[in-house]
Amino acid sequence: MRVAVLGGDGYCGWATALYLSKKGHSVAIVDNFIRRQWDHELGVETLTPIRTLAERLRVWRDLTGNQIELFVGDVTDYDFLSSCIQTFGPEGVVHFAEQRAAPYSMIDRKHAVFTQVNNVVGTLNLLYALREFQPDCHLVKLGTMGEYGTPNIDIEEGYITIEHNGRKDVLPYPKQAGSFYHLSKVHDSHNIMFCCKIWGLRATDLNQGVVYGTITDEVALDEALINRFDYDEVFGTVLNRYCVEAAVGVPLTVYGKGGQTRGFLDLRDTVRCIEIALLNPAGRGEFRVFNQFTEQFSVLQLAEMVQAAGAKLGLEVRVEHLPDPRVEAEEHYYNAKHSKLIELGLKAHLLSDSLLDSLMNIALRYRDRIDATKMMPQVNWRNARNARRPGASADVAASGPQLAAVGANANRAK
Amino acid sequence: MRVAVLGGDGYCGWATALYLSKKGHSVAIVDNFIRRQWDHELGVETLTPIRTLAERLRVWRDLTGNQIELFVGDVTDYDFLSSCIQTFGPEGVVHFAEQRAAPYSMIDRKHAVFTQVNNVVGTLNLLYALREFQPDCHLVKLGTMGEYGTPNIDIEEGYITIEHNGRKDVLPYPKQAGSFYHLSKVHDSHNIMFCCKIWGLRATDLNQGVVYGTITDEVALDEALINRFDYDEVFGTVLNRYCVEAAVGVPLTVYGKGGQTRGFLDLRDTVRCIEIALLNPAGRGEFRVFNQFTEQFSVLQLAEMVQAAGAKLGLEVRVEHLPDPRVEAEEHYYNAKHSKLIELGLKAHLLSDSLLDSLMNIALRYRDRIDATKMMPQVNWRNARNARRPGASADVAASGPQLAAVGANANRAK
Repeated sequence: MRVAVLGGDGYCGWATALYLSKKGHSVAIVDNFIRRQWDHELGVETLTPIRTLAERLRVWRDLTGNQIELFVGDVTDYDFLSSCIQTFGPEGVVHFAEQRAAPYSMIDRKHAVFTQVNNVVGTLNLLYALREFQPDCHLVKLGTMGEYGTPNIDIEEGYITIEHNGRKDVLPYPKQAGSFYHLSKVHDSHNIMFCCKIWGLRATDLNQGVVYGTITDEVALDEALINRFDYDEVFGTVLNRYCVEAAVGVPLTVYGKGGQTRGFLDLRDTVRCIEIALLNPAGRGEFRVFNQFTEQFSVLQLAEMVQAAGAKLGLEVRVEHLPDPRVEAEEHYYNAKHSKLIELGLKAHLLSDSLLDSLMNIALRYRDRIDATKMMPQVNWRNARNARRPGASADVAASGPQLAAVGANANRAK
Repeated sequence: MRVAVLGGDGYCGWATALYLSKKGHSVAIVDNFIRRQWDHELGVETLTPIRTLAERLRVWRDLTGNQIELFVGDVTDYDFLSSCIQTFGPEGVVHFAEQRAAPYSMIDRKHAVFTQVNNVVGTLNLLYALREFQPDCHLVKLGTMGEYGTPNIDIEEGYITIEHNGRKDVLPYPKQAGSFYHLSKVHDSHNIMFCCKIWGLRATDLNQGVVYGTITDEVALDEALINRFDYDEVFGTVLNRYCVEAAVGVPLTVYGKGGQTRGFLDLRDTVRCIEIALLNPAGRGEFRVFNQFTEQFSVLQLAEMVQAAGAKLGLEVRVEHLPDPRVEAEEHYYNAKHSKLIELGLKAHLLSDSLLDSLMNIALRYRDRIDATKMMPQVNWRNARNARRPGASADVAASGPQLAAVGANANRAK
């Protein structure tokens, strides 16, 4: 199958591109390297020393004989994106090309507006390009479990049957996203559903949980193929960040009580889920939603698991409860369905002791590259502007002039 | 009360600004005149000869002694908008400053992207400006009944109680919007709800039905205060358009079977609803939704009412069923709640024979200004690009190269 991976230089995108190439698909990567640019902006580096995409692709070709095509440009540029679609002629498009960090979207107004415009316009452009030039192509879009928030009822996969006043309908599951980033994915989902309806496009929205791990079989073939491993407070997902914190001997940064429960999955399952979706495409006009995760954990449970894994390696791991920089329920009901991908053949890699050991070992192996000042949260949801200063924490930021101003103005206006 | 009306030079905005000024509120208009620019782009004019905003405001001041302040600029420009908020210090902001025509958003990709970026960024900017400079100010945001689509269950006001698998929660009502414009309002609603939660802002989302009429008590005071009356296929709302069609002797343009049922309201009720919302503000952190309409009609019912009103005036009015240029159910269940504004004191102006007579008389009075080529739909939802050519219709456009291309590509990709 001809598959274009938009955002193929990123964390999930790179692993997906290699996996699909290894499985015999014709793969093209579309990327503008903005993920690397964000590292410069934030003054952080991935734990793992990733190579340039040119070198990655050259090594992959030398090792496997498989040529991954490359289109360098921005999906918000319609001339560029539509020419990629026309030139490559994909049967499937995997769309990772979005700003994907909640804290990044909450830094300030400019980052919020950038995130929503970048993500919404990129996806609108892709929908139009498919409509105009490749209308039978299957769009596999990365959404997020965060679109649902934490409702007090079970979370279904995209839709829910509602009985109300004696009548019944199947409707889109209500969305309660928790950051401007997560909201951008909600906007995307609504836009995609509409385009499937009016233009007969085929789309699968993968509402993905929090991904952990960095090694896949393909990435492991050569040091030059190594994947990103982000541990900073902005782009580092929680389990990866905990492992780095344990390795470098700083306390694990649990936000608030730690009862925040989410769906999680191994990066090796991400790439497999993508292929399952591609091999079982949505029908013409169908907007299909899969919840893409394998297990639920609270962030405190994960911290305790990392603590135990660290002890086995002789590390003394402490857990610190920080004031939650996010506005979210710290204890809540959470039961999210995730059976559709399993029914299509997903065999999950569950979070085991051995996997945690290997994650810890990666963190230890690259310990010299860790900047221990990058893990404390500096982006507080309650602030309109977060100055990301070296050594500052969200706790400090939250007590600064921004929140004080709320109270002052509130009094004045009364 | 100090009230800023964003988009105060537009159809609902102008009537609202005058009404609030007459009722003794201190009013400021914020507008960039883009609504007038769209007339130039589309080659259309409002039926009524509206004056410049400068003249309108001068006449209003001379007649009433009330000075309406004016800020000229674009709400997507944060420096401009935030300085308006700081300078004027509103206790309430009424936000009409969005691109509000579904067909305009469906012309092509650029119009879709413009509509969503313009509306989403303008609202994000407003949320940040309130958070930073006027956090106790009450945001009254114009949403649309079109956010809900046409579900097979009763439509509630913003939220619905869902019982599911033995548990219960009150969740945002599922959204199924029917154009990129309506979707932009869905995006806004999600963003505003989130900001109320994280920043404690107060907001009322008025999910407004289709507005008809042009005269309010204030507008009627002087010819120079006359309001817009759009009848073209892009910006003309259905009942206004029918009246103009009847006056000029062309068939009423009913899309499809005409069973499309929507909520409607008189412009005089729009302005009253806005004041009711302002006088009964949402609490800190509350995101409140009111469905703002007074009666439900199908578009065919309205056509038959206009036909009857025309007969009384000696006009022979024909009804023509055109192929529906929109992708929508032409027959469906529709029962939308709208009791909250009534509970707060709204006394509705229902659509009566006498009102229809006055609407028809306005259309007849300005009959010489009617361009009879502007009523036939030229924007077809099924096309990625709609060339709005003089005399072309959506029916013709739908059979053009765009839709043919779908079939061709679909075959090629199989």
